[in-house]
Amino acid sequence: MLRLGFVTTNPNKLREAQLVVSRYGIELYPVTVRKIEIQSDSLEEIAVYAAKKAFEEVRQPLIVEDAGLFIDALNGFPGPYSSYVYRTIGVRGVLKLMEGVENRRARFVAVVALALSLDRIEVFRGVVEGTISYEPRGSGGFGFDPIFVPEGFDKTFAEMSTEEKCAVSHRARAFEAMARWLRENVQTLKPSTST
Amino acid sequence: MLRLGFVTTNPNKLREAQLVVSRYGIELYPVTVRKIEIQSDSLEEIAVYAAKKAFEEVRQPLIVEDAGLFIDALNGFPGPYSSYVYRTIGVRGVLKLMEGVENRRARFVAVVALALSLDRIEVFRGVVEGTISYEPRGSGGFGFDPIFVPEGFDKTFAEMSTEEKCAVSHRARAFEAMARWLRENVQTLKPSTST
Repeated sequence: MLRLGFVTTNPNKLREAQLVVSRYGIELYPVTVRKIEIQSDSLEEIAVYAAKKAFEEVRQPLIVEDAGLFIDALNGFPGPYSSYVYRTIGVRGVLKLMEGVENRRARFVAVVALALSLDRIEVFRGVVEGTISYEPRGSGGFGFDPIFVPEGFDKTFAEMSTEEKCAVSHRARAFEAMARWLRENVQTLKPSTST
Repeated sequence: MLRLGFVTTNPNKLREAQLVVSRYGIELYPVTVRKIEIQSDSLEEIAVYAAKKAFEEVRQPLIVEDAGLFIDALNGFPGPYSSYVYRTIGVRGVLKLMEGVENRRARFVAVVALALSLDRIEVFRGVVEGTISYEPRGSGGFGFDPIFVPEGFDKTFAEMSTEEKCAVSHRARAFEAMARWLRENVQTLKPSTST
């Protein structure tokens, strides 16, 4: 069993991530150190900076995740600032911006930065393509989940169970990539089935 | 004459600030070190962090300015992320969010952080109250200037000359406060009239 600190105050993120990595024998525990997020158009840059700063504080292997909803017709808005935009103009504001807009293409992107030491930070990316719905639907998930319909589905993320969402979500894909990498690169890590 | 580094890549900001502080015998020069802006709802926090990090790099007295447009009906949006919002959804996007909204109250806020040493950072704030117009007007200024009408005027910031804008703007007020503070607190600084 590998234990990794997860710098987050969002219990939804922790739950979604744990669901994915537990299959690989990884256990996540919340790290309460302050997450220093810089302003950048690049989720990678934000996550790497935050992971570095957090590692400097706690000196334990840890991960930082950053995610955002990128809407093509809005030039990528709200992107890295999705949580601020959610707190201010919200789902209704984004739907208003999309009124009369035919091109509904969007993607959720998640980046996980894994800090193993001060100068060793690995980065993993997960993407899910989709479209912006015309009205909010569903009560699951969080953030912009009620208006995001992943490709190949009729439901929004908020209409899916955590398990369904984790089968396709950006966050799940990023954490899956990290878990696979750890299995291949960390000697002490074994799949949970063999423990 | 006091020379101060200004960490900015925006020539408009430099010009507006210089116009204000030159009356106090202060000359600003651009500092090209990377400006590290954190994500925060507080302009003060963003400016102080950036000033500290820049000072660590260049070890010269320097200033960092951060500003934003805070719209009451949008819970303060776009706030500290005004420049990102401007680059993505732009003036048209903000006007669309304000369609049918009666409460047009907004304010521009600027914060100047002056780093004099690693542990001495002074902070100055400038605010201008106003309203969001119904359509963009004027071609001066930059950013959201074409839709901001300062209190007591019929014109938007973009319809004013740099001199007119500097008589009332948030940025001018923050820099004015800094210049006055420097005059009172820095021995070597004299008003330019006496040099």
